[in-house]
Amino acid sequence: MLGADAGELAGVGKLGVTLVASLAEAVKDFDVLIDFTAPDVTMQNLAFCVEHKKQIVIGTTGLSDEQKATLTRAGEQIAVVFAPNMSVGVNLCFKLLEIAAKALGDDGGYDIEVIEAHHRHKVDAPSGTALRMGEVVADALGRDLKTCAVYGREGYTGPRSAKEIGFETIRAGDVVGDHTVLFATEGERIEITHKASSRMTFAKGAVRAAGWLQDKSAGLYDMQDVLSLR
Amino acid sequence: MLGADAGELAGVGKLGVTLVASLAEAVKDFDVLIDFTAPDVTMQNLAFCVEHKKQIVIGTTGLSDEQKATLTRAGEQIAVVFAPNMSVGVNLCFKLLEIAAKALGDDGGYDIEVIEAHHRHKVDAPSGTALRMGEVVADALGRDLKTCAVYGREGYTGPRSAKEIGFETIRAGDVVGDHTVLFATEGERIEITHKASSRMTFAKGAVRAAGWLQDKSAGLYDMQDVLSLR
Amino acid sequence: MLGADAGELAGVGKLGVTLVASLAEAVKDFDVLIDFTAPDVTMQNLAFCVEHKKQIVIGTTGLSDEQKATLTRAGEQIAVVFAPNMSVGVNLCFKLLEIAAKALGDDGGYDIEVIEAHHRHKVDAPSGTALRMGEVVADALGRDLKTCAVYGREGYTGPRSAKEIGFETIRAGDVVGDHTVLFATEGERIEITHKASSRMTFAKGAVRAAGWLQDKSAGLYDMQDVLSLR
Amino acid sequence: MLGADAGELAGVGKLGVTLVASLAEAVKDFDVLIDFTAPDVTMQNLAFCVEHKKQIVIGTTGLSDEQKATLTRAGEQIAVVFAPNMSVGVNLCFKLLEIAAKALGDDGGYDIEVIEAHHRHKVDAPSGTALRMGEVVADALGRDLKTCAVYGREGYTGPRSAKEIGFETIRAGDVVGDHTVLFATEGERIEITHKASSRMTFAKGAVRAAGWLQDKSAGLYDMQDVLSLR
Repeated sequence: MLGADAGELAGVGKLGVTLVASLAEAVKDFDVLIDFTAPDVTMQNLAFCVEHKKQIVIGTTGLSDEQKATLTRAGEQIAVVFAPNMSVGVNLCFKLLEIAAKALGDDGGYDIEVIEAHHRHKVDAPSGTALRMGEVVADALGRDLKTCAVYGREGYTGPRSAKEIGFETIRAGDVVGDHTVLFATEGERIEITHKASSRMTFAKGAVRAAGWLQDKSAGLYDMQDVLSLR
Repeated sequence: MLGADAGELAGVGKLGVTLVASLAEAVKDFDVLIDFTAPDVTMQNLAFCVEHKKQIVIGTTGLSDEQKATLTRAGEQIAVVFAPNMSVGVNLCFKLLEIAAKALGDDGGYDIEVIEAHHRHKVDAPSGTALRMGEVVADALGRDLKTCAVYGREGYTGPRSAKEIGFETIRAGDVVGDHTVLFATEGERIEITHKASSRMTFAKGAVRAAGWLQDKSAGLYDMQDVLSLR
Repeated sequence: MLGADAGELAGVGKLGVTLVASLAEAVKDFDVLIDFTAPDVTMQNLAFCVEHKKQIVIGTTGLSDEQKATLTRAGEQIAVVFAPNMSVGVNLCFKLLEIAAKALGDDGGYDIEVIEAHHRHKVDAPSGTALRMGEVVADALGRDLKTCAVYGREGYTGPRSAKEIGFETIRAGDVVGDHTVLFATEGERIEITHKASSRMTFAKGAVRAAGWLQDKSAGLYDMQDVLSLR
Repeated sequence: MLGADAGELAGVGKLGVTLVASLAEAVKDFDVLIDFTAPDVTMQNLAFCVEHKKQIVIGTTGLSDEQKATLTRAGEQIAVVFAPNMSVGVNLCFKLLEIAAKALGDDGGYDIEVIEAHHRHKVDAPSGTALRMGEVVADALGRDLKTCAVYGREGYTGPRSAKEIGFETIRAGDVVGDHTVLFATEGERIEITHKASSRMTFAKGAVRAAGWLQDKSAGLYDMQDVLSLR
């Protein structure tokens, strides 16, 4: 497909952007590289961007500690956004959860539950995003998720303990990814919910990160920076 | 409080119904007895109703097999409604679940999950109503809930199996009782949900049962009969 | 693309089914035709099926009364399934709504609201499916949707009237199609919900109809027949 | 009921707090007054607190501008919390909505809808809280709610405009008060939801405000201060 128009391939009409075999061939045509590849490829792309003073948005997961160290060093020379989950909404929810947990407080009488749903093919439970949501809340409340998480309830459980964080994992059909964190006390419930409907959410987050990068100086950033949530 | 007006005690204004110390004192004033008591008291009330040709609506739970047999014999002489859960909505949902499960089919590719939420003080999980909903669905599909129920998911679970029925139990705040049964396949989800907001739902079901009984001949009935769902 | 393998085109791997230019070329290779086309094309396909004693599943919308009369006559010779909405779940929900409305009753004290959500590009409100859901409920209760429907509430409305059916239309993002019918009274809510996640739901309904047709004699059927909901 | 124990009256057991006929009789027994009364009574209570250097939490609604000015002057002498809605959760949601709206942006492609549900007796629509939620979001985005709010959709509406904020008002049964603000774009939805289950939520907010006040110097505060959300 080399030489084909990227827009036509994506089904959105001719864009005037031609597929080429290497970054070198396009070096004059871009300011920011968006990288959703694999760790080794990411390292090569990063080196290229450092060499040519390009900016880079990295959504690749599974980087080793050594590769992350390389990322940090690259951030001294160019502007880098690195985020394992590029979704604007998920990253926003992390922030909202932190604020909510701190406002409601560890002793505020609010029970916390994380309910998530994914398609039938997903092989792990709860999802990485659900666990991260639990961590954000636990951190904000000074709890340790390792000791306060509850992953299922069956039979005689006794009354709920105040400090536990419950996870309920739904697996069904083709659900792309739903997450709700519930804070409930006598008299009220607060729910913060994210529902992904397609991978478009990751693509849009990456494009937003690229736009945000344009006037930034060297540094290693994440989506909290992009969304001005620090 | 003997001699007080029942309506005034309940905070709904004078009704002209006076509290008395025994059924014998009110025997000329009622046609149907509504009984939410305890098994032994229920048996006494039932005997009274048989003797005086009154009808009876029983919402008491925990009857022994022997006591249930007494109920069956009473049904040969008077009209009796017996239902451990008097809620119109819950009983309707049982019927809707049976119809939905049969229509979607055991091999129809629909994954089934039962999600329930109750207040922090509830000591068992899942709720009796959630388990009954699972049974209704399992029976309709020819599955055995004992072998197909899944009560929690954690870690590497592998892909969801087609025949399992998942239960997710939320315990939080003051939730009176929410139940959702989800049928999900590629392209769509169907959800049947019941939310109780107060015990009023049980009282209303009992009153509905009493009204329904008025022109019925002797027999042992349940809420499916009252709601014309057979 | 004539001569190409249908499975490869659909991205699901070689199926051994070859695209041909006309039904005549495939006449020996099929038992049931699935038709999602346009009214005039449907009429040609129908005539072909009558001539060759094939069965047909029709999901095409917009047929004229005259064309529907042709459909009825065809049903005297071959087995036909005709349904403007092939979704198994939506058709099941219509049935569940009818049962629920009849059980809860016109004077049962249940308020009825229909809440639907669709993507930002949808130009009509409420959706045809939402209106049909309202009709099914209104018919079951002996109400006329034309006079009892409420499509928005703003300002001083006064208390809700008992017989109105409210519609709430959400337009946002890329929602494929969510529908909930709510029955609420003092003490409880019952909700029947359908969520479409892709057009796959229509394809699956059509395939199910085709399978169901195989041992059926001549007749004009709809999805209520296919799902054994009559 | 003068002389009765407040705890016994409230059904929570003897508290050792006796009902008295005037604040003067209890002046030595309290540090903070919680006032849910009527504007004129609030003004008297406020004067009493200023005179005796007590703190006050005011949840009374309907104060005139003049009365609010009195409140401001009182805040120069004593510590006052004034909030028309004392619910911790609702006030937290206002803050979460402001953060979410700013992060997602006016041109971020997120459609915003406010869905609320209340009981059948409520006479205005949408609820004051729903309108306030819409205002918070509109303010954060630089929009004017007066011109961008849409309160119902019926018939041919055309595609949704990007800058409108839709309100959907559900009236049904005994719903105490549910509010959801939806932000939806291609690929994802974020929802912030509050559900009140009883008036207890207002009482708890007031108690929290009273506790927070204890070490505060003179000033006029609101629930955003109490929850450290400024």
